[in-house]
Amino acid sequence: MTKYRFQDDYSEGCHPKVLDILQTTNMVQQQGYGYDEYSQKAKELIKAQMQNENSLVYFVSGGTQANLIVISSLLRPHEAVISADTGHINTHETGAIENTGHKILTCHSADGKLKISDIQFQLDYHGRNPHMVKPRMVYISNSTELGTVYNKSELIELYSFCQSNNLLLFVDGARLGAALTSAGNDVSLKDMGIYTDVFYIGGTKNGALLGEAIVINNMDLQLDFEYYLKQKGALTSKSRTIGIQFLALFQDDLFYNIALHANKMASTIADALKEKGVEFLVEPMSNQLFPIFSNATIAFFEKEL
Amino acid sequence: MTKYRFQDDYSEGCHPKVLDILQTTNMVQQQGYGYDEYSQKAKELIKAQMQNENSLVYFVSGGTQANLIVISSLLRPHEAVISADTGHINTHETGAIENTGHKILTCHSADGKLKISDIQFQLDYHGRNPHMVKPRMVYISNSTELGTVYNKSELIELYSFCQSNNLLLFVDGARLGAALTSAGNDVSLKDMGIYTDVFYIGGTKNGALLGEAIVINNMDLQLDFEYYLKQKGALTSKSRTIGIQFLALFQDDLFYNIALHANKMASTIADALKEKGVEFLVEPMSNQLFPIFSNATIAFFEKEL
Amino acid sequence: MTKYRFQDDYSEGCHPKVLDILQTTNMVQQQGYGYDEYSQKAKELIKAQMQNENSLVYFVSGGTQANLIVISSLLRPHEAVISADTGHINTHETGAIENTGHKILTCHSADGKLKISDIQFQLDYHGRNPHMVKPRMVYISNSTELGTVYNKSELIELYSFCQSNNLLLFVDGARLGAALTSAGNDVSLKDMGIYTDVFYIGGTKNGALLGEAIVINNMDLQLDFEYYLKQKGALTSKSRTIGIQFLALFQDDLFYNIALHANKMASTIADALKEKGVEFLVEPMSNQLFPIFSNATIAFFEKEL
Amino acid sequence: MTKYRFQDDYSEGCHPKVLDILQTTNMVQQQGYGYDEYSQKAKELIKAQMQNENSLVYFVSGGTQANLIVISSLLRPHEAVISADTGHINTHETGAIENTGHKILTCHSADGKLKISDIQFQLDYHGRNPHMVKPRMVYISNSTELGTVYNKSELIELYSFCQSNNLLLFVDGARLGAALTSAGNDVSLKDMGIYTDVFYIGGTKNGALLGEAIVINNMDLQLDFEYYLKQKGALTSKSRTIGIQFLALFQDDLFYNIALHANKMASTIADALKEKGVEFLVEPMSNQLFPIFSNATIAFFEKEL
Repeated sequence: MTKYRFQDDYSEGCHPKVLDILQTTNMVQQQGYGYDEYSQKAKELIKAQMQNENSLVYFVSGGTQANLIVISSLLRPHEAVISADTGHINTHETGAIENTGHKILTCHSADGKLKISDIQFQLDYHGRNPHMVKPRMVYISNSTELGTVYNKSELIELYSFCQSNNLLLFVDGARLGAALTSAGNDVSLKDMGIYTDVFYIGGTKNGALLGEAIVINNMDLQLDFEYYLKQKGALTSKSRTIGIQFLALFQDDLFYNIALHANKMASTIADALKEKGVEFLVEPMSNQLFPIFSNATIAFFEKEL
Repeated sequence: MTKYRFQDDYSEGCHPKVLDILQTTNMVQQQGYGYDEYSQKAKELIKAQMQNENSLVYFVSGGTQANLIVISSLLRPHEAVISADTGHINTHETGAIENTGHKILTCHSADGKLKISDIQFQLDYHGRNPHMVKPRMVYISNSTELGTVYNKSELIELYSFCQSNNLLLFVDGARLGAALTSAGNDVSLKDMGIYTDVFYIGGTKNGALLGEAIVINNMDLQLDFEYYLKQKGALTSKSRTIGIQFLALFQDDLFYNIALHANKMASTIADALKEKGVEFLVEPMSNQLFPIFSNATIAFFEKEL
Repeated sequence: MTKYRFQDDYSEGCHPKVLDILQTTNMVQQQGYGYDEYSQKAKELIKAQMQNENSLVYFVSGGTQANLIVISSLLRPHEAVISADTGHINTHETGAIENTGHKILTCHSADGKLKISDIQFQLDYHGRNPHMVKPRMVYISNSTELGTVYNKSELIELYSFCQSNNLLLFVDGARLGAALTSAGNDVSLKDMGIYTDVFYIGGTKNGALLGEAIVINNMDLQLDFEYYLKQKGALTSKSRTIGIQFLALFQDDLFYNIALHANKMASTIADALKEKGVEFLVEPMSNQLFPIFSNATIAFFEKEL
Repeated sequence: MTKYRFQDDYSEGCHPKVLDILQTTNMVQQQGYGYDEYSQKAKELIKAQMQNENSLVYFVSGGTQANLIVISSLLRPHEAVISADTGHINTHETGAIENTGHKILTCHSADGKLKISDIQFQLDYHGRNPHMVKPRMVYISNSTELGTVYNKSELIELYSFCQSNNLLLFVDGARLGAALTSAGNDVSLKDMGIYTDVFYIGGTKNGALLGEAIVINNMDLQLDFEYYLKQKGALTSKSRTIGIQFLALFQDDLFYNIALHANKMASTIADALKEKGVEFLVEPMSNQLFPIFSNATIAFFEKEL
């Protein structure tokens, strides 16, 4: 009997096509620090899909790095970021955001998503009071840490609300592939370019060895971004290493195909579990499942596996 | 006529053996965040060469990242690091160290090396005065930003001085391969484990796609180091990506062979230039050359190349 | 008809005796930066009351300043402070603690007090996981932001728990006078020296023009504290300005008499309100009252006053 | 024989008129956090002298505090401040500026003054290179740490240069009184409002118990300044304590008279020393003298005094 193990996104290597292109380009000389041809071409592919020539794209090595650079570079010292309490920046980044000097204002979320009423509460609570931080950014993850996904009308509503309230909208897309290929999703990469100020596209969890692509849509926020990358140790000298991987992912829809496959496999498991009567913490929407097992079932799994 | 171009350490891909091992291990499942077998094995190889089981080794993605994590995690807020004014942390890291809250105390250096008299001056100048920062760490690069190399007696002397003066010695080894294989070098990796508190081994400039190995020898400094890595966005989730590369470099002396080759080729160029009467800013010791050309020669090169 | 206005602690000048001693000492030359005779004598008075010669006392100009210096100087970058969600550091210091790089872990509190079960929850939740911050300090206010007061057995229990769990106990005593003179209080300044690692004694809210006295009991935490004061702009050059005020407050029990008077007056008001059937958000224990008025009553007050 | 001792600016109390007004206003209720009538009136007096209604004035408790708040609130993370190497922020603030995340770029100065050629050098050296910090602010002290004074044409030239080069000009006026009343000075408070972006007026060294007045002329820099004050622990709750002192200083020219007197007395000493043939490190211009004594003379003084 064949055993399959589903550990997490980090336990595998990369998609073979990613290694192939690393191999075929390896002996070509290129410029460093983001100016290699592969990075340039990968950026062009991403911007072409977004149908937006004005966005800037930068490659960094990981998600926590992307989050801390974006947030610390866009906020002034007294400004804070609003997040669901389940948000990765709040729970599993060892205080990385606070370490750059900024408070995270959290809203309780049962499904990992942030609601406009939550943001409004924070705005009302803080008002214009110099004794409290000033909310200035909204952070959401798509898909969220609970595997849920924002649909297009939710995204537009959030962005409009932010626009009306002098807030920046930043989307953590470590799992953006899973979101954009989830069943029922109606958000495109083009929408991400229109209805966010900044977002990033996760490579590490979607077929790359490592790498995330930060996309800055709001032109007011683009100034001097390379300085921030360098200052935080994120301006990769052999930038081709990450650029090539995104080139592989955004040629021929590989990025979407990998994510779609993961979502489908997760869905198959979810359906099988549902058939057995298993309930879920939140309704499965992408490649993360949170089934609720009895202690007996857990004990059985632990013994057999 | 064949043209050879010597741009810099960042313009090439990686050594083919590095890609080979990435390829052969790609489909094997592994744990993330530093606990994959390849990272573990690479760490064992490094510690075996150091003949030191007590050091801790961590892999990060770049040199500026290594510098800012080491320095910010080992210093308390009022403590400062002493560096040659040519030191990378002082010149080309966009204020990364200051951004973590620490002052760099600089000493003028003509050859990139830091002298004990310079350190003593800073100690005397600052004394025990709470109106001034407290010198607590000494930062040197080996090889230095000018290509010069510390020999073993210099290293021991610096370390002893630091020990006697409550200073930590941190060696930036972004170019450590070049140093350890330079003509006349008598420092070994084992010495690095004995005569420094912390150092790192540069992979990016010596055959890897990206990656540096931080080595913490001083056991008082080892506590909680993974927290600092994570907080600064440096705890790579697919840690195998860097671990495998160091495994390739530290099997069969590949790390040293790459560096030795670069040094030899640089030496050939240096000798040819010297034969033509060219003088150097500093005497060539490793793979960095600083020849002094006339404006006419520079103009000629620019036209022909 | 005479009107009395109870705005807040900040709307008054200082106690006349404080100005008197500023006046009588004004023409005497003294050393700066904490080494004037008045500061020295005030420190001796405080330590004598604590019956503890080993504590160190430092004067700073305000409460937020005291909080941010104590917390940032005692924590390493990945360490966090646990606080009630009502804690001043969490609500009304404009992110001052986060601005020094540290996350505040909050526990919901209905009465402003922190319970051991809350702290235990944070310890269990964070475990020893480098992806999350490391809880290292417990912050309580006495009296709290809701006017409640810790009794001696609660304080001892908190301190013992902290001792057993490698946590530092820091008491924000901006309103310590109110706490130590509240009805039923059994905590003394001596207890504060025994059952806390660090605390401060609020002058600003208790008769001084400005000034708080930070007291460091834990001798492991005393090293280099003047450096932190200076670095955060808190090492007052004419240190006599604050030292003299504490000299006035700690001669002849002035500190306690002022607080006791305020508590008594508040109690008189509370009793009168209770007689009228008014209920309170939390039972009045010190000089802060949180009566619950009907909208009609509020409207009446706004019209008449 | 009467002995006079000239220790430093910090060894005295305050001018009697400062205490008088603290006394006469003590029993009046006022709003806190900067909104008391005395602070408002003091601000109006300062702005009236500047003939500039658009500047904002804030009172803080000390010079290092003023420096770190101004610099950290006006710079983005990758921006640096240019200073003479003798500048107080570089030498005697325990790394306060670096602790807020910013590098200080220093220029050697023999007389404490910063020259345009020094600033130009830093601009040329850094260029537009994301691997290096971005110079964005120029910091000068007036009078300088060596007692020298900028005249009006120098100030205008510096400000024009800054304007042309996208640099902010910040003047540390801890000793501004001494500068504005020095022999030959032609700079007025009005000029300070025109030819600087931000400056502060030192009270502590000029007759106050404590307190500095930060003046923000550049309207682009005024947004949210109270948040920064609060976040750094500088928003004094009993703001009247400092406001009243500035009210005393800026009624009836007290501020200038105190400074003028100090300058004259210093000049008398300087003349007497010159008559004796004593030379000076820099030509005396204000109330700081740097005479060069022989070791024998120093030994004599140490014995007699």
